[in-house]
Amino acid sequence: MSKPIIGVMGPGEGASQKDINHAYELGQLIAKQNWILLTGGRNTGVMDAASKGAKHSGGLTVGILPSESKDGISEFVDIPICTGMGSARNNINVLSSDVVIACGSGAGTISEVMLALKAHKPVILLNPSESLKKLLDELPYSSSYITYSLDHAVELIKQLL
Amino acid sequence: MSKPIIGVMGPGEGASQKDINHAYELGQLIAKQNWILLTGGRNTGVMDAASKGAKHSGGLTVGILPSESKDGISEFVDIPICTGMGSARNNINVLSSDVVIACGSGAGTISEVMLALKAHKPVILLNPSESLKKLLDELPYSSSYITYSLDHAVELIKQLL
Amino acid sequence: MSKPIIGVMGPGEGASQKDINHAYELGQLIAKQNWILLTGGRNTGVMDAASKGAKHSGGLTVGILPSESKDGISEFVDIPICTGMGSARNNINVLSSDVVIACGSGAGTISEVMLALKAHKPVILLNPSESLKKLLDELPYSSSYITYSLDHAVELIKQLL
Amino acid sequence: MSKPIIGVMGPGEGASQKDINHAYELGQLIAKQNWILLTGGRNTGVMDAASKGAKHSGGLTVGILPSESKDGISEFVDIPICTGMGSARNNINVLSSDVVIACGSGAGTISEVMLALKAHKPVILLNPSESLKKLLDELPYSSSYITYSLDHAVELIKQLL
Repeated sequence: MSKPIIGVMGPGEGASQKDINHAYELGQLIAKQNWILLTGGRNTGVMDAASKGAKHSGGLTVGILPSESKDGISEFVDIPICTGMGSARNNINVLSSDVVIACGSGAGTISEVMLALKAHKPVILLNPSESLKKLLDELPYSSSYITYSLDHAVELIKQLL
Repeated sequence: MSKPIIGVMGPGEGASQKDINHAYELGQLIAKQNWILLTGGRNTGVMDAASKGAKHSGGLTVGILPSESKDGISEFVDIPICTGMGSARNNINVLSSDVVIACGSGAGTISEVMLALKAHKPVILLNPSESLKKLLDELPYSSSYITYSLDHAVELIKQLL
Repeated sequence: MSKPIIGVMGPGEGASQKDINHAYELGQLIAKQNWILLTGGRNTGVMDAASKGAKHSGGLTVGILPSESKDGISEFVDIPICTGMGSARNNINVLSSDVVIACGSGAGTISEVMLALKAHKPVILLNPSESLKKLLDELPYSSSYITYSLDHAVELIKQLL
Repeated sequence: MSKPIIGVMGPGEGASQKDINHAYELGQLIAKQNWILLTGGRNTGVMDAASKGAKHSGGLTVGILPSESKDGISEFVDIPICTGMGSARNNINVLSSDVVIACGSGAGTISEVMLALKAHKPVILLNPSESLKKLLDELPYSSSYITYSLDHAVELIKQLL
């Protein structure tokens, strides 16, 4: 039986310092629960910070890369998966995660939230903007959860696994 | 030289009657401009209605199917592309369209809007909700256009091609 | 109801002059039957020659590109599909063709023959090497057909559709 | 820095008992070298046997599944990647492996050998048939290696990493 895989999705180059700090802490919390961390694998933004946090707490990290090779990979990724599929790999991120957490919101991250809803995957939004929150309310899906606390995010994951 | 390909994206089973009417008219307008219509290819909602409109006006229609076979294809699709990739095919919809139009908003459609922004593709939103409009304002991309009129949508496409 | 789609697969840069001549003629024969031609879409080798032949005989041509954009596309492709998936698009070539013809044999072409067999698609090999022929004999699939004549290839397609 | 990932490719339902025995031993040898094993992830044939061998020797196993969910996964896979892409995932198997080993030969396995050559990945063939060997000789690629011994396969991998 494989351990739970928690996908942390968030902006790369466009991540805010707050997103990056949260992602680092999330990575740590995930590792401490003995869950596997999955990200988009690149050496920037939320992907890099979450992977770094997980490694600093002794966790195992998977990175689903958009590229054909390991160029641009985060040094904190243990298992690089080279898809060569560009942004189409966002769907693999979501399908391979038992629970998805969105930390920050770029276009790629929102695409992952939407693909998660389509796939009926539980998706937790950390500090979403008011407009993203309202948009989710308008959609006929019930697998999204909103939180403003990292500890609560971990509690939610425990309930959802 | 190939003709312009205009991608019309919108909900399948969850489409409203208004979305379906708009999609049918859009299909007609696209065909009358001698552009090729591209949709997600299924026999439901916006995909089916846009393809039907285009065929009724003598156009050519491409359908990028999520499935491995033609099961569930719209009868108004001339060129079925069977991807066998599920929702990951949403990225192909966007990359293969010269201009993307979102008509209605389900999770899949919003994923396509976001993937279009990521790919720096022009994307026109027809009658977006206030929350989707605000969400787009928050994102650092400038290739989205909002309109509330089908004729204006066609004018926008002409400018964007 | 869509017209039959015939996929012509063959080497790009590594195509022999004989492969290219055959591909051009195949493109013509396919167009004359009022079938749609599907290729890998690039401006080289078998893909380019088959598309050119089909256009010279008034046919319709689809190109499933490995790239995210139309860079490197054959000028004889009417419908470019930009997958952004590299060689993973070989599976889409096969799934989207009602019958696959392999004209020449590079590694990519053989991957397409094998993916066609896996998908239980009829696949016709034009002038295969002895070793490829023997390899097919060793595999437990019955959907491959071997021919050494273009006219016979067309007859085979008619029977297989 | 991530550990080397060794991809073991081979038939599922069509695997021979010899293929299965080799795959199990290969899995053990890979784990003993402290390399990560990557397979197609399903609970049958070479994929299952290699994963089982690796787990019995304390290794870490990745499975790149064709399906959207974990249905049909080998119980010996630690990291399931759900691609939802069917056989198009064969390209991900190859791109994500530092060295590919083909153990047995079905159509899917041969597609992976060919995709590996296209991607200029080193690929080791264990006990290939004469016809597959000849076919490789005809192709203009130099990244394939043939062996008839598991220990020699491990030596080859060491040289290729």
